[in-house]
Amino acid sequence: MIGKLNHVGVATPSIDESLKMYRDLLGATSHTDKWAMPEQGVWVCFVNLPNSQIELIEPYGEASPIHGFLAKNPKGGQHHICFEVENIYQARDSLVAKGATVLGEPRIGAHGTLIIFVHPKDMGGMLVELMETPKDAH
Amino acid sequence: MIGKLNHVGVATPSIDESLKMYRDLLGATSHTDKWAMPEQGVWVCFVNLPNSQIELIEPYGEASPIHGFLAKNPKGGQHHICFEVENIYQARDSLVAKGATVLGEPRIGAHGTLIIFVHPKDMGGMLVELMETPKDAH
Repeated sequence: MIGKLNHVGVATPSIDESLKMYRDLLGATSHTDKWAMPEQGVWVCFVNLPNSQIELIEPYGEASPIHGFLAKNPKGGQHHICFEVENIYQARDSLVAKGATVLGEPRIGAHGTLIIFVHPKDMGGMLVELMETPKDAH
Repeated sequence: MIGKLNHVGVATPSIDESLKMYRDLLGATSHTDKWAMPEQGVWVCFVNLPNSQIELIEPYGEASPIHGFLAKNPKGGQHHICFEVENIYQARDSLVAKGATVLGEPRIGAHGTLIIFVHPKDMGGMLVELMETPKDAH
């Protein structure tokens, strides 16, 4: 079912500060602009690597779902991991049939394709995002 | 400096149980055998994805460095992230020159090439592994 490791989601109190770290300390050379996803309660920015991406997420608004994570991890850290799937509804139905807890209905994610999240209790302690592979992916 | 996202390191109390989750719930189709790395205090197993890998690590011995992580996260979770670099000594020297805390001397990692770890306090709360790209990497 799962295909590529699309990205690792990394929570941060400041995308701007994180970008300095990736550029100046780790020598990353490519990233997107940051943009707001108010319906998800996050600012988002992708650091581009040759084979995958780091998704930096910063709280947007007081109801952001990552405030709790940052309260426990003030410097930020690895927040979720995202694998690609061909069809999000098939993936969702398969997981539910096997007893996993899928969080909410499929919705459009940061790459413009359908996503779901799977509860960490069923995923070895990791918050897992599944996303449909973008049609223009190379 | 950093190249590919080589792998995400995931701590688990049981590699065997984690493999069931990757195979049966997520439908992963390829993984290595598990093997012990006594000098690192871990059992290791890689789940192969088309573009990257998940490194499952389970404690080996009472002095394993991941007992503390599992005490805080009994189900396991994301433990570190590993980026490839061309030359580990150049990477180490560059990081040290910029004030980052590199943990220990370069040593041979699970892929047979030199690795270092960089302290989470300098890496946005993430434990970062850097490894030299294997010469036979495709």
